[in-house]
Amino acid sequence: MRMSAFFLPVLKENPSEAQIVSHRLMLRAGMIRQASAGIYSWLPLGFKVLKKIEQIVREEQDAAGCQEVLMPTIQSAELWRQSGRYDDYGKEMLRITDRHEREMLYGPTNEEQITEIFRESAKSYRELPKLLYHIQWKFRDEVRPRFGVMRGREFLMKDAYSFDLDEAGARRAYNKMFIAYLRTYARLGLKAIPMQADTGPIGGDLSHEFIVLAETGESAVFCDKALVDRDPLAEAIDMDSDLQPMVNSWTARYAATEEKHDEARFNALPAERQVAARGIEVGHIFYFGTKYSKPMNAAVAGPDGQPVTLHMGSYGIGVSRLVGAIIEASHDDAGIIWPDAVAPFNVALINLKADDAACRAACDDLYAKLKAAGLDVLYDDTEERAGAKFATMDLIGLPWQLTVGPRGLKSGVVELKRRATGERHELSPEAALAKLVG
Amino acid sequence: MRMSAFFLPVLKENPSEAQIVSHRLMLRAGMIRQASAGIYSWLPLGFKVLKKIEQIVREEQDAAGCQEVLMPTIQSAELWRQSGRYDDYGKEMLRITDRHEREMLYGPTNEEQITEIFRESAKSYRELPKLLYHIQWKFRDEVRPRFGVMRGREFLMKDAYSFDLDEAGARRAYNKMFIAYLRTYARLGLKAIPMQADTGPIGGDLSHEFIVLAETGESAVFCDKALVDRDPLAEAIDMDSDLQPMVNSWTARYAATEEKHDEARFNALPAERQVAARGIEVGHIFYFGTKYSKPMNAAVAGPDGQPVTLHMGSYGIGVSRLVGAIIEASHDDAGIIWPDAVAPFNVALINLKADDAACRAACDDLYAKLKAAGLDVLYDDTEERAGAKFATMDLIGLPWQLTVGPRGLKSGVVELKRRATGERHELSPEAALAKLVG
Repeated sequence: MRMSAFFLPVLKENPSEAQIVSHRLMLRAGMIRQASAGIYSWLPLGFKVLKKIEQIVREEQDAAGCQEVLMPTIQSAELWRQSGRYDDYGKEMLRITDRHEREMLYGPTNEEQITEIFRESAKSYRELPKLLYHIQWKFRDEVRPRFGVMRGREFLMKDAYSFDLDEAGARRAYNKMFIAYLRTYARLGLKAIPMQADTGPIGGDLSHEFIVLAETGESAVFCDKALVDRDPLAEAIDMDSDLQPMVNSWTARYAATEEKHDEARFNALPAERQVAARGIEVGHIFYFGTKYSKPMNAAVAGPDGQPVTLHMGSYGIGVSRLVGAIIEASHDDAGIIWPDAVAPFNVALINLKADDAACRAACDDLYAKLKAAGLDVLYDDTEERAGAKFATMDLIGLPWQLTVGPRGLKSGVVELKRRATGERHELSPEAALAKLVG
Repeated sequence: MRMSAFFLPVLKENPSEAQIVSHRLMLRAGMIRQASAGIYSWLPLGFKVLKKIEQIVREEQDAAGCQEVLMPTIQSAELWRQSGRYDDYGKEMLRITDRHEREMLYGPTNEEQITEIFRESAKSYRELPKLLYHIQWKFRDEVRPRFGVMRGREFLMKDAYSFDLDEAGARRAYNKMFIAYLRTYARLGLKAIPMQADTGPIGGDLSHEFIVLAETGESAVFCDKALVDRDPLAEAIDMDSDLQPMVNSWTARYAATEEKHDEARFNALPAERQVAARGIEVGHIFYFGTKYSKPMNAAVAGPDGQPVTLHMGSYGIGVSRLVGAIIEASHDDAGIIWPDAVAPFNVALINLKADDAACRAACDDLYAKLKAAGLDVLYDDTEERAGAKFATMDLIGLPWQLTVGPRGLKSGVVELKRRATGERHELSPEAALAKLVG
C-alpha cells in the first residue's frame, strides 16, 4: 500500500479524551475514531490488526475442534425470559422495541441463543460432544464507557459454547479451550497467565481468567515466574488426547489476581520466582453445568433413551479489547510496537526523497520485490519531510523500517531498522531484501 | 470435516414457513435457523458459504483500490439529524434509547457515518480520491420480513463510499465499482446484468442495479443476450486506466427491469437476442454528489485553498442476500448446486459401509490425501443408510461426490459424481484423486 493512497489520518497531538496509552495511541495512529460514547469506527490500519487477531483466534478455535457459527446481534426478550436473565440483567442490556412493539435486545452474550439452537437441533447423545463458537459484535451499555476499545459499549467477542452429556465431558471441552487460549495469546505475542476465577453459584474449580501482563495493566496480579517463562507454542498438542495433566501443570503453579491473592502461598515461592505485576483480562472460560439447559429444557436422549439435560460451558475472548491489550503490553514513548503476527503491515518502506529519481526507482523496485515475496508493505512515497516520516512509522509500529535515501544510495546502502529494538543496519538493498524475505 | 462430528441439523420435511426455494433449502440443509422474525443464526454450513462470498466481495473491492474499514452497528440519532434523514426515515429504522436516554439507532446504511469520519480526517484535495468500504450487519425493520435471508431484518451488506473533488472524479470511482461488481458476481458463479436505476432527486445516469438471473427471481427483467453471454472475467482490467469505454460497452446494450422496460427498444433487438427472464437485485451503485457532504459540511481545501464540498457515491452489495440469490439461481429438485467458488466444501466423501474395514481404510486414505492437497472435504463416516447419505449430499449441494462402497472396492473402483450435471464415473481411487486435485 502506498502511503499517498492510504487512508491513515494520524494525529500530531495527544487527544485529550484518552486516559490510557492504548486509547491514545490508537487514536493518534489513525486506527479508530469514536462514533459515540464507547462506540468506535475502525479505520484501515486498525481494521487490519483487528482482522489478524480475529483470524488467529479463529484458527486456534478450529484446531480445538470448535465449529464456527454466527448468531445475530439482535435477540428476542422472550428468549432471555426462558433463562430468567431478562429481568436479572440490569441497565447494561440495551433493550429495544421494534415496530410491532416486540421487546428485543442487543445481545451482550449468547448463552440463551446457542442453547435454543442446540435444543431445537440435537436430539441424541450421539450428536455430542459439540463445541460451537462465533465472533460477533456485542453491546453492553456501560454507564461510563472509557479506555477506548478496552471498555467500549459495542465490542467484538469470540464466544464458544460446549455441549456435553455430563461434567466429565464438559471438563474435556474446558481443557481444550484452556489449552487453545494459551496457544492463542502466545501466537498474538502476549504473555497470558491463567488465573482461577469465581465460579459464582455453581462452585467447583472450572473457571479461569486469562490475564495478559502489561506494565499499564488495570489490576495487580501475582504469579510464579515459571508460568511467565513457559511457552505454550513449544509444546506439541493433541487435542483428542487427555489434556488434564497439561492443564494441571499450569494450574498447579501459583497465579492469582489481587482479589484472590494469598500472600503466604506467594511468599513460599523462591524470591526469584515471585512475579508481582499488572495485568489485563483478555479471556474467561467457565463451566456452568445445567444453568441454562435446565430452565430452557435443553436435553438429548441418552443411551438408554431417557432425556439427559445438557452440561454446558462458555468461553470468551475479547477480540477488539485485545487490540488495546497488545498495545498496552507492547509500546514505547514513540508509539506502538506490533508483534509480527498481528502487525498491520510487515514492513515500512520509507523513501526519504520522493522527488529524487534514483530513490524512487530503488524504492519502487524494493516495493515490487517485497510484495512479490508475499510481504505486506506500507510504502511512504509522499513528499513529507524525513523527520515526520520516521515519527509516523514509529507511531504506527510496523516491525521493520526500510529506509532509502539519496546519500545511502550513492554508497549502495539502505537502512533496515527493527522497531522493537531500535537496532539499525546499513546494508545493500539485496541484503535487506534477503533479511526481510527470510 | 467428519460428518459424525459436524453440526449439520438437516431437516427431512419441508418447513411450512418457507415460501421460496432458497429459504426452504437453507433451512432444510441446516444452513440457518430463524432467531426471530427476519433474523437468522448461521450454522456451520451456512456460515462457510457466507464467509466465502464475503471474501470474494472483499478481494474485488481491494483490487479496485477500495480500503476496508469497519463502522459500528449502533449510531447516534444526532448524526442522522445532520443529514436530515433521521425524521425522513420511517419505521424501517430501528430506533433505540440508551441508559442515558440518548437517541441511537441500528444503522440501516452508513452514508452519514462515513461522511463524518471523512470530514474529521481529510483536510486537503491531496488526500483524494478515496474509496472506503465495510462489510457489516445492518438492520431494517421490515414490516413483513420474509423469504429468509433474501429479505431479512438483520442482514450483512458490503457498502462502499467514494470521495472526490468533482463529478468527473466521482465517475471514475463509479466506473471502478461498476467493473468490480461485474467481476464479483462472475466469480460467485452468477450471471449479473447491470440495469439503469432511478437516481431520485439528483438525476443523471449514474445509478445501476445489478440483477442476477434466476428462474425463481422476484421480478421480470429484459435484456440483450449479448450481456448474458459476456464473461467479465475474460477481460483484462487495469483499474487505473480509463474504464469509461468498458462501462459504455455494457450500458449501451439493452437491459431493463419491468418498471423501466421499453417494449419498442427490446423488440428492435434480433429475436434470438431478446432475453425475457426473472431476476433478483444483488447490488446497487449510486452517485449522489453533495447530498450528504453539503448539509454535513464535508469539504477539503482545494488546490487554491478554497473549500470544495466532496462529491460522493455509495455502492452496496447484499452479502447475506447473495447466499439466497445463488441458491435461487442454482438448484434442482434434490437440493442446492453450489458453484465451486462458494461451495462450503469442495468434496463430499461418502463411505457406504462405515463398519466395513476395507471401506473405512480406503475412505480414511482418500480423506487424508484430499485434505493434504488443500481440498475441504465433508466425509460422511456415519452409519446412516446409503439412500439417506446420498439425499443429504444432494441437498447440501457440494460440487463433487466421491462414493466408496464394498462392491466397488472389490473391483478397485470408487464412484465420482458431479453434482451439477449428475454425471458419474467409476474409476480407481487414484484416478478420482487426480481428477479432484487437478
